[in-house]
Amino acid sequence: MELLKKMQSIFSPSGEEESMRNFLIKYISENKKNWKKKPKLIYGEEFQNCLILVFGKPRCAIFSHIDSIGFTVGYDNELLRLGGPIVENGIKLFGEDSQGKINTKIIYNKKTKKITCDFKRKIDRGTNLVFQSNWKETENYIQNCYMDNRLGVWNALKIAENLLHGILVFSCWEETGGGSVGYLGKYIYEKYNIKQALISDVTWVTKGIKFGKGTVVSARDSGIPRRSFIKKIINILSANDLTFQIEVESSGGSDGNQLQKSPFPFDWCFIGPAEKHVHSPKEKVNKKDIFYNQKVYEILMKKL
Amino acid sequence: MELLKKMQSIFSPSGEEESMRNFLIKYISENKKNWKKKPKLIYGEEFQNCLILVFGKPRCAIFSHIDSIGFTVGYDNELLRLGGPIVENGIKLFGEDSQGKINTKIIYNKKTKKITCDFKRKIDRGTNLVFQSNWKETENYIQNCYMDNRLGVWNALKIAENLLHGILVFSCWEETGGGSVGYLGKYIYEKYNIKQALISDVTWVTKGIKFGKGTVVSARDSGIPRRSFIKKIINILSANDLTFQIEVESSGGSDGNQLQKSPFPFDWCFIGPAEKHVHSPKEKVNKKDIFYNQKVYEILMKKL
Amino acid sequence: MELLKKMQSIFSPSGEEESMRNFLIKYISENKKNWKKKPKLIYGEEFQNCLILVFGKPRCAIFSHIDSIGFTVGYDNELLRLGGPIVENGIKLFGEDSQGKINTKIIYNKKTKKITCDFKRKIDRGTNLVFQSNWKETENYIQNCYMDNRLGVWNALKIAENLLHGILVFSCWEETGGGSVGYLGKYIYEKYNIKQALISDVTWVTKGIKFGKGTVVSARDSGIPRRSFIKKIINILSANDLTFQIEVESSGGSDGNQLQKSPFPFDWCFIGPAEKHVHSPKEKVNKKDIFYNQKVYEILMKKL
Repeated sequence: MELLKKMQSIFSPSGEEESMRNFLIKYISENKKNWKKKPKLIYGEEFQNCLILVFGKPRCAIFSHIDSIGFTVGYDNELLRLGGPIVENGIKLFGEDSQGKINTKIIYNKKTKKITCDFKRKIDRGTNLVFQSNWKETENYIQNCYMDNRLGVWNALKIAENLLHGILVFSCWEETGGGSVGYLGKYIYEKYNIKQALISDVTWVTKGIKFGKGTVVSARDSGIPRRSFIKKIINILSANDLTFQIEVESSGGSDGNQLQKSPFPFDWCFIGPAEKHVHSPKEKVNKKDIFYNQKVYEILMKKL
Repeated sequence: MELLKKMQSIFSPSGEEESMRNFLIKYISENKKNWKKKPKLIYGEEFQNCLILVFGKPRCAIFSHIDSIGFTVGYDNELLRLGGPIVENGIKLFGEDSQGKINTKIIYNKKTKKITCDFKRKIDRGTNLVFQSNWKETENYIQNCYMDNRLGVWNALKIAENLLHGILVFSCWEETGGGSVGYLGKYIYEKYNIKQALISDVTWVTKGIKFGKGTVVSARDSGIPRRSFIKKIINILSANDLTFQIEVESSGGSDGNQLQKSPFPFDWCFIGPAEKHVHSPKEKVNKKDIFYNQKVYEILMKKL
Repeated sequence: MELLKKMQSIFSPSGEEESMRNFLIKYISENKKNWKKKPKLIYGEEFQNCLILVFGKPRCAIFSHIDSIGFTVGYDNELLRLGGPIVENGIKLFGEDSQGKINTKIIYNKKTKKITCDFKRKIDRGTNLVFQSNWKETENYIQNCYMDNRLGVWNALKIAENLLHGILVFSCWEETGGGSVGYLGKYIYEKYNIKQALISDVTWVTKGIKFGKGTVVSARDSGIPRRSFIKKIINILSANDLTFQIEVESSGGSDGNQLQKSPFPFDWCFIGPAEKHVHSPKEKVNKKDIFYNQKVYEILMKKL
């Protein structure tokens, strides 16, 4: 899990994902010699901060977003939410502006709802700050910021090791309403005729979804995927005796919603482990679910 | 009206429209020999559950969505809205899961807002349920579930009988925020240079829109079509002495909104009869308005 | 400022921008002989009411929307908001329907929230009405309706005079959720490989943004541009000692949001002067900010 831990300390707020993208390029370049198949790396200005890996003759893509929630510094060190982070007094943040590195804590006024930070000097307007990493591990659980979505990215990198045919898409702006999935979907649809996508991300523990009961296959959230694709996935997983839970929600969303809105005929399904303490610095995930999740992705990338 | 009645009992919730699509393909294959012009049928995996008919040298398309509102079964037979159905105790639903056919009724707790059903066993998570058909007809009115939008589909099929030049698009996911109009619009724009669309759907009786006063031409709702296209339509209809009403609303939407959001320069106009008891199992429409609606579509497909 | 004043009295509500588009075509045709470089004019049915000017070998585009907020006449002279205009008793509006020209005033019932007008006869349903122009000028300020966005358009036309390489895009429907930026972005991306856009529009005076302190470079609003593009712009402006203010907001939006949602990899940044009395007939702007704004655009179109 060292790789996951490392990625959770990389600064990558929505719209400013260069460090994560560069980390991935370096990691892949160094490690692909040990992979079953060497992928083609696709990135550059046409793809902003995103990255695509193409393995063999792909039929299905995995989307995992590399951006994270955080805060943008406004006027007089006031903080504006970037995406939907929870806010509590004392949460530790970091970032950097023209004058240097920033380590600070949230000061939250419950009455006025005003969010500021305790940094001594005025931070440059527009500077993004993200949660500081604080890894906690027990026998059954890991807990840190940004399980959402470094865990989804980690899952994609693990799948990469044995993948023969498939595409891995590392997307941006997922936490702030999208902005990259449209052109990423366009590229893989037009160039590789890919119409199937799995969304490798993290979801919520709810009354229907429990820790340790397997990774979560979402039948729907605010987005409505084509039912036949969900059924196909459930049938494959059932036929292979894999452990998973089916989620049915009316809110929440993912890169799947962006694929749904794109002018390309994508089938998509969200699959990922559930967590507690969503969008906080202590997102908690069950280790067995992480393991189950990998098994599910492995089989699906073969069978879809 | 037997065709309309039959279509209202076909299971076709948003994202699971295969039965309606297959019914249409069968109906068209059997009936097109009696049509003035044989259309080209376009469907398949590139079009998910949608269907396109191309007649002659098209200049204008009719969009009618084949999906319907309904409910998705969540945890312990709880029901989640699929689109915006009204909810009342006792409303009859049907569907099917891995264990067989389902006929059940809504149980609605007004206090907790919880919606469940009275089915004895646990229904598979993610199963969709839709209203049961209950056709009622008087001299002037018909009443049933899914006027929205089997009536719009029926209208398109009637227009098909005499259509020489035009495109009929049968779209999906209209009730849940879209997902097919983007690529459908892309296809007809890029392949046939179509930039004009009529939205064949059903709207609401309001203080400005009355039963029996003609089909409704919408000048706007939450979506704002190009004014010159609306004027062009009104001018054609006035010059041909057709009976219609002009709607002006600030809420509501249709496949027109999806065309508006697509990266293609579509002009669009919503045209369809008004109903009472919107999104309930007893949507009520005036027969004269249905008749007027056909006349309006007939002339517009010739003149636009 | 005669040009700006003139444009503020042109009828151009969202979806009905033909007069503004035609005015621009005429103005450009008459004036381009005095410009450093003659642009290529692109318009017509593929572009609805929009207009594109291409100068030399473009690397960056300026988007300025030519539509305005206003009202649509509903049933019995009731008025529905088109976009988000403020509403007050006595605000003067104008328009035209099939029976002739319309000059009228808003009647607003604060209790019922009903908006009507004092016009004597019934106005055609669907007719759009806009604010009447009432130019006020002092030494430091100008005030009128539709600074938003005739000032952004005016800025683009001033930049045109000396522009060697670049694209000017005049877009529609900005005030009502979009509808043209998708295909405009598609065109300039596919034909000219343009991926950089400046949004020439008007923003708000807030606690962090003051009159006379320079034009506003927005680091974010409801839309989140790529941070590296914002930094690039700030670096260019700082290196050239230009006067500007950095805005950081969580609400508000522009054509930038539409570019962000398009399936093309656009970098974009909102740049424009701040105003008071937003979306009213008396939008107020500081003259120095207008001057600073032009300097900023001039340098950016050279350096980006």
